[in-house]
Amino acid sequence: MAERIEPRVLKGFRDYLPEAEIERSALMRSLEATFRSFGFVPIDTPVLEYAEILLGKGGGETDKQVYRFSDHGGREVAMRFDLTIPFARFMAEHVDALYLPFRRYHMAKVWRGENTQRGRYREFMQCDFDIVGADSASADTDIVLCIASAMEALGTGPFTIRVSHRGIFNRFLERLGGEVKTGAILRIVDKLEKIGAEEVRALLAAEAGAEAAHGILDFIRREADFESTLAKLESLSGGPSPGSERLRAVWAKASAAGSAERLVLDPSITRGLDYYTGIVFETSLDALPQIGSVCSGGRYDELASLYTDRKLPGVGASVGLDRLLAALDSLGISRKVGGYTEILILDVDESAEDRYQAIARDLRKSGLACEIYPEKRKLAMQFSYAERKSIPLAIIAGGDELNRGVVQLRDLRSRESAELPYVPGPEGSSGLAAAARGALRGTGNR
Amino acid sequence: MAERIEPRVLKGFRDYLPEAEIERSALMRSLEATFRSFGFVPIDTPVLEYAEILLGKGGGETDKQVYRFSDHGGREVAMRFDLTIPFARFMAEHVDALYLPFRRYHMAKVWRGENTQRGRYREFMQCDFDIVGADSASADTDIVLCIASAMEALGTGPFTIRVSHRGIFNRFLERLGGEVKTGAILRIVDKLEKIGAEEVRALLAAEAGAEAAHGILDFIRREADFESTLAKLESLSGGPSPGSERLRAVWAKASAAGSAERLVLDPSITRGLDYYTGIVFETSLDALPQIGSVCSGGRYDELASLYTDRKLPGVGASVGLDRLLAALDSLGISRKVGGYTEILILDVDESAEDRYQAIARDLRKSGLACEIYPEKRKLAMQFSYAERKSIPLAIIAGGDELNRGVVQLRDLRSRESAELPYVPGPEGSSGLAAAARGALRGTGNR
Repeated sequence: MAERIEPRVLKGFRDYLPEAEIERSALMRSLEATFRSFGFVPIDTPVLEYAEILLGKGGGETDKQVYRFSDHGGREVAMRFDLTIPFARFMAEHVDALYLPFRRYHMAKVWRGENTQRGRYREFMQCDFDIVGADSASADTDIVLCIASAMEALGTGPFTIRVSHRGIFNRFLERLGGEVKTGAILRIVDKLEKIGAEEVRALLAAEAGAEAAHGILDFIRREADFESTLAKLESLSGGPSPGSERLRAVWAKASAAGSAERLVLDPSITRGLDYYTGIVFETSLDALPQIGSVCSGGRYDELASLYTDRKLPGVGASVGLDRLLAALDSLGISRKVGGYTEILILDVDESAEDRYQAIARDLRKSGLACEIYPEKRKLAMQFSYAERKSIPLAIIAGGDELNRGVVQLRDLRSRESAELPYVPGPEGSSGLAAAARGALRGTGNR
Repeated sequence: MAERIEPRVLKGFRDYLPEAEIERSALMRSLEATFRSFGFVPIDTPVLEYAEILLGKGGGETDKQVYRFSDHGGREVAMRFDLTIPFARFMAEHVDALYLPFRRYHMAKVWRGENTQRGRYREFMQCDFDIVGADSASADTDIVLCIASAMEALGTGPFTIRVSHRGIFNRFLERLGGEVKTGAILRIVDKLEKIGAEEVRALLAAEAGAEAAHGILDFIRREADFESTLAKLESLSGGPSPGSERLRAVWAKASAAGSAERLVLDPSITRGLDYYTGIVFETSLDALPQIGSVCSGGRYDELASLYTDRKLPGVGASVGLDRLLAALDSLGISRKVGGYTEILILDVDESAEDRYQAIARDLRKSGLACEIYPEKRKLAMQFSYAERKSIPLAIIAGGDELNRGVVQLRDLRSRESAELPYVPGPEGSSGLAAAARGALRGTGNR
C-alpha cells in the first residue's frame, strides 16, 4: 500500500456537500425558471479558451489573477474569469448562425486567483443574462422586470432596484467642463455607499475642484420621487436628452407592469466600469442593505468589438449567487434539506428485501421519491440515516406483514404510524401512495 | 481601435448554442429526476485540485492527457479528468461529516487533452451516481434499477443491461491455474464485441494457451437464460460462491421490481478496469447496439484507499451523456427546440409598448413563458424570430385594439388567429391565458 495522500482542496476552492448543493441548485433552478418565463435561452461555452481571447493581445501583465498556462500543444490557454468575455467571443463567432435580438442566460463557474484572505473564493458560480441586438426601452425594461420577478420568486422580501443612466451623467460632466476626468469621477461616486458623502466630497474636490465637487454631489442626490429626480437630472445636464427620455420610457413601462414601486432613480449609481453607456442598475434587499447589490448591470454599446465589426449593443445583468445564498440564509428562508427522498423503506427483515423493491417501484411510479435502506441494520441507525437526509416518511414492513397485505407508514416528524393495505402493483399500492402524499401535503413539507 | 482577435474556441472544445444546450439540459434534468426518485443527492467538487490528489504521488509520467500547471502560489494543480477520483477524495475528506450509506450523483465537466482526430472532445460532461458504504445485493440492485428507470424516463425504447460478476470470473481463472494473467485476459475478453470471438480466441491462446482459450470462450458464452448461465458459471468456477449468490439475489430483486426482462447475464462483460471487484454492468439500446454502452459501472471494494484507511465499498455507474444525446438524436426522440418561450408579443405599435408589458406580466403570472419583441420591426422579421425560437403563439395588438379591450392570439403553427378580450389584471387576462394554454395543449407542443 502506497503512502496515503492527504485529502484536501486548494485554498479558495470548496466542496459542496449535499445540503449546500441542494440549496444552490434550488436557487439556480428558481432563477432559470424566471429567465425562461422571460424568453431567455441557455448557452454554454468552454472553461478553457485561448489566453489571447480572454485577455486581449498583450494582456496578462495586469491579469495575475487569471489561471493561464501552456497546453499540451503549446497553446497559451486560460480558464475563464467571467462570463462576459466568453459571451462576447460567442456572439462574434456565431451571430450569423443565431438571430437578433438574442436573449441568453449562462450560469457557470469562473476562476480568479484572488487573495483569499478577504474571504474571496477562487472558484465561484456566475449567472448572467443579457438581451443583445436591441437598443430599446423595452429591452432595458425587460432586464429590470426580470430582476424583479426573480427576486419575487425567491421570496427575499422587499427589494429595491436603483437605476441611473450613464449618458446623462456624462452630459452633466461635460457641462462641468475643464479638466474633468469622467472615469475617475465615476469611480469616486461609486464609493458613496462605502465611504459616505463627506469623504466623496473631499476626493471629488481633490480631483476636480471644490465647486465641481459641490455640483456633482448635488447631481447625484435623490429627490422626492422618480419624476422630480429625473427633472433635476435633465435640468443639470442641459435639458432632456435621449438618456433621460429612455429613463422616462423605462419608468412608464415598469409602471404599466405594476413594478414601478420597485424602482428608484438614484443618480449615484454608476457601476464604475467604462463598459456601460446607458441605463445602469443595482439591486439591494431592503432587509439586508449591508450585503450590497445582489444583481447589477446595465446597457453597453458594443459587446464584442474586440472580435468583430458587427455592432452588438445590449443590456444585461449579473446575479450575485453567493451573496443571494448568504442572504436567503440570513433571512431564514433557505430550505436546508439533506435530500429529496420522501419515503425510506426500512430494512427490517432480510426475507422481505425482494418485496421492498416492489414497494419502491410502486411508490416511484406514483411520483414519490423513495429509497430502500440497503441492508438490515439496527432501527436506530436507520432512523438516524433518515434524519440526516431529512426524510419525512418511513415504511416498516416485515415478511409477516407483507404476507398479510399490510405495511406500516410512519411519519418521522410526528412519530405517528398507521397500518395500511399494500399489495404489489398500481392498484394494490394506490392507497399507500395516497396516504403518503396526504402526509407530505398535510405538513407542507414538500 | 485595436486589431481584432479572431473569435474561435480551442480544438476539442465546443460552444453550446441554445438548441443544443436546451437538449443537453433536458437530458440532464430527466436523469436528475430519476436519481432523486431513488434517493441520490447531488454534490459538487472543485474543477482544480492538487495534481498529487488527482494523479497520485509521482503520477504524471503516464498522464499526458491531464491539464496540469503551476498556479500563482507555485502549487502543482490539475483540472479533473473524471469524477471518480474527486469523489474518492471527497468521501475520504468528509466521511465523518456525512453518513453512510451515501448515495450521490454528480454531473459536471471534465477535461482530457486527448487526440481529437478520433472525434474525442477535450471538454465533456460526465454523470456518475454511486452508493458508498453498503456491500449488499440491495445496493447493487438499486443501481441497476436506477439505470432502467432512467432509460425508461428518457424513452429510448427497449434496452438491455448486461451484467456479470468479476469475483466469479476471478475464481474461474484461478482454477485454470498456471501462468494466467487475470488483467490481460480481462482486457482481451473486453474486446469481444469489437473484434469477434475468433480474434479473441487467437489472442487468448497466445496469452494462455489453446486449451485455456477454449475454456474461457466457453465460460463467457451466454446460455439460454439467466439461471442456466449462472448455473454454468457456478459449475465452471468450482460451485456456488458469494459472487454467484449475489448475482442470484440481484436477479430476484430485479424480478420482484418487474425489471428482470431488462437484465441479461453476460459473462463476457468485464469492464476491463482493475478497480471493479463485484457486479459489473453495461447498458445498450436495442435499436442502436453499435453506439456501445450508454451506462456502465460496477462494484468496487475500496473507493478511497489512496486517501484514507476507512474502508469504503461501493457500487455505481456512469452515464455516457454524449452517447445518449447522439442516441436520442438517431432515434428521432430528442426535442429540438430553439427556446422555452410560449408566447411572443409582437411589437406592432410603439404607442402600445407600455401595455405589452402588462400583457406579458399577466401571462407570466398565469404560468406562461412570454416575451415581447423589443422594438417595432417589420412583421416578417418578428415572425422569423418566433420561428427561430420555436415560439408557438403570438399576440398581436395595436393601441386601437387594446383600447377596445381585445387582442389577437395567433397560432404560429396553424396560422389561425382569434380575437380575444383582454383587460390588464388577473381577471381581464384569464380568458386570454386559458385560450393560450388550450392552444398549447391542443397540439401537444409543450
